[in-house]
Amino acid sequence: MAGRTARRRVLKVTLDGSPVTRHRADLLATEEPLGIRLDGEALTMTMRTPGDDIDLAAGFLVGEAIVASQHDIKEIKLCDGASCRHEHHGSSPGNHGHDDIGNIADITLASGPAAAAGHARRSFMTTSACGVCGKTSIDDICVLPRAPLADDTTTFGAPALADFPGKLRDAQKVFASTGGLHAAGLFTPDGDLLVVREDVGRHNAVDKLVGHALLNGMLPLAGHALMVSGRASFELVQKSVLAGIPLLAAVSAPSSLAADLADEAGLTLVGFLRGTSMNVYTHDHRVTAEPGKTP
Amino acid sequence: MAGRTARRRVLKVTLDGSPVTRHRADLLATEEPLGIRLDGEALTMTMRTPGDDIDLAAGFLVGEAIVASQHDIKEIKLCDGASCRHEHHGSSPGNHGHDDIGNIADITLASGPAAAAGHARRSFMTTSACGVCGKTSIDDICVLPRAPLADDTTTFGAPALADFPGKLRDAQKVFASTGGLHAAGLFTPDGDLLVVREDVGRHNAVDKLVGHALLNGMLPLAGHALMVSGRASFELVQKSVLAGIPLLAAVSAPSSLAADLADEAGLTLVGFLRGTSMNVYTHDHRVTAEPGKTP
Repeated sequence: MAGRTARRRVLKVTLDGSPVTRHRADLLATEEPLGIRLDGEALTMTMRTPGDDIDLAAGFLVGEAIVASQHDIKEIKLCDGASCRHEHHGSSPGNHGHDDIGNIADITLASGPAAAAGHARRSFMTTSACGVCGKTSIDDICVLPRAPLADDTTTFGAPALADFPGKLRDAQKVFASTGGLHAAGLFTPDGDLLVVREDVGRHNAVDKLVGHALLNGMLPLAGHALMVSGRASFELVQKSVLAGIPLLAAVSAPSSLAADLADEAGLTLVGFLRGTSMNVYTHDHRVTAEPGKTP
Repeated sequence: MAGRTARRRVLKVTLDGSPVTRHRADLLATEEPLGIRLDGEALTMTMRTPGDDIDLAAGFLVGEAIVASQHDIKEIKLCDGASCRHEHHGSSPGNHGHDDIGNIADITLASGPAAAAGHARRSFMTTSACGVCGKTSIDDICVLPRAPLADDTTTFGAPALADFPGKLRDAQKVFASTGGLHAAGLFTPDGDLLVVREDVGRHNAVDKLVGHALLNGMLPLAGHALMVSGRASFELVQKSVLAGIPLLAAVSAPSSLAADLADEAGLTLVGFLRGTSMNVYTHDHRVTAEPGKTP
């Protein structure tokens, strides 16, 4: 498995009147496939930046509503074609962090293979159903949250929110060297950045963050905000709700369906969070002029 | 089916010393699921901005190496739960453009259902194989191009390339009103923008563009450049190569795998195309100081 960045030769062209060219080395963000297996069956494949692969696999399962606590997972192994290595046991959630062995994450659920098969079948039937029957309401395409967020009365101060993008960017180590990564950051109402994850795929960055939280017993993430470096899609709203996060903030625009699902699920959705302004699309009672607080 | 934009109420917060808030209406880019069926079987589901759905479905099939010419497609219908409407027949590629009926695109291949089943099976086995066997070479995960690009001796002048981003941005009508869409543009070596497509999903924008070209008999797109508004991933390189495009340019960074596949397939990959400079990662003989030309 490769590292998070890879060196490539590039021709740099600069137009200063006529074009000036020179060859130099450039660092690119690594993109490689990670296969996720559930109780021995192939579940999905994602193109991701290597690193935090155990977290990525665990977080993906949260976003598919297959697990909601670290106790739902018996074991996660990272494998290549020839060998595996045990990385996570439900009884020792801190026992992970080295994931340099391969491009397959093999997950065993605590509830056993039969339950896993049922989970996976339900999940993918839910996803593909809208393509089959033509229904397009949110109920038909989303994996429904287990608990509504309406009871989370955490608030976030607008000045603290305005500082999120700068803090997230400062923490993006791989982006700084490649310019090519999405980021997801977990913040407190006081504006402290607790966890940051980067990936070539924006969904993967969120999955890595949520998986880290799951394996450290932090789910549901009540009282926290999630900030993403790009836009807010339907899928990112769904992942936030399933992780129990009350506020999702994005540097860029949300989609219509992202706003609709956030409205329905009780999530505060903030978009265009940049400079000294922001748009609050749903449940704006959680954004306050005074400093935020956790009840 | 909704339009390309949707109006939502938003709380605009501006920090000018203390926060100032006001409610106003805001336009969001619409995001809705589109199911794609191949000869009656569900093939995939994508979250897209409605519009050009026939093109999107056709372009998706090009990117999966299922079709390579408009003659490979017998018919594309747009359906909802109750009814369908014929949109494209292989014999009249210009007969499309109105696609306001539903969220399912149902494609019938000219080669018949058996061939379609074989295509789909091969395609998805290819994609999921890397998650099962752990192989991570490009050969194991990509749908291989039918023809190498090495014989395409088209060149593109660096000054014309530098004008691509501005022309693409000027043509982004929905982005201008929502700030929330990715774009893909098809350019000639002279710098003329022939086709532009927008979508909440960057892969969808490329599929819409390639599908439009397919249904108008333009494939393979030798002698053209594709410009995308975001980053260049492995998958966008693959889609470009399968459409026969010799140069892919992106505003932002490519991934390592995007550069590796471009190198192998003979595609010129340009990244960080912004302002007065650009990086050429592969096959830089197609980027010249003098004006570009098609042989």
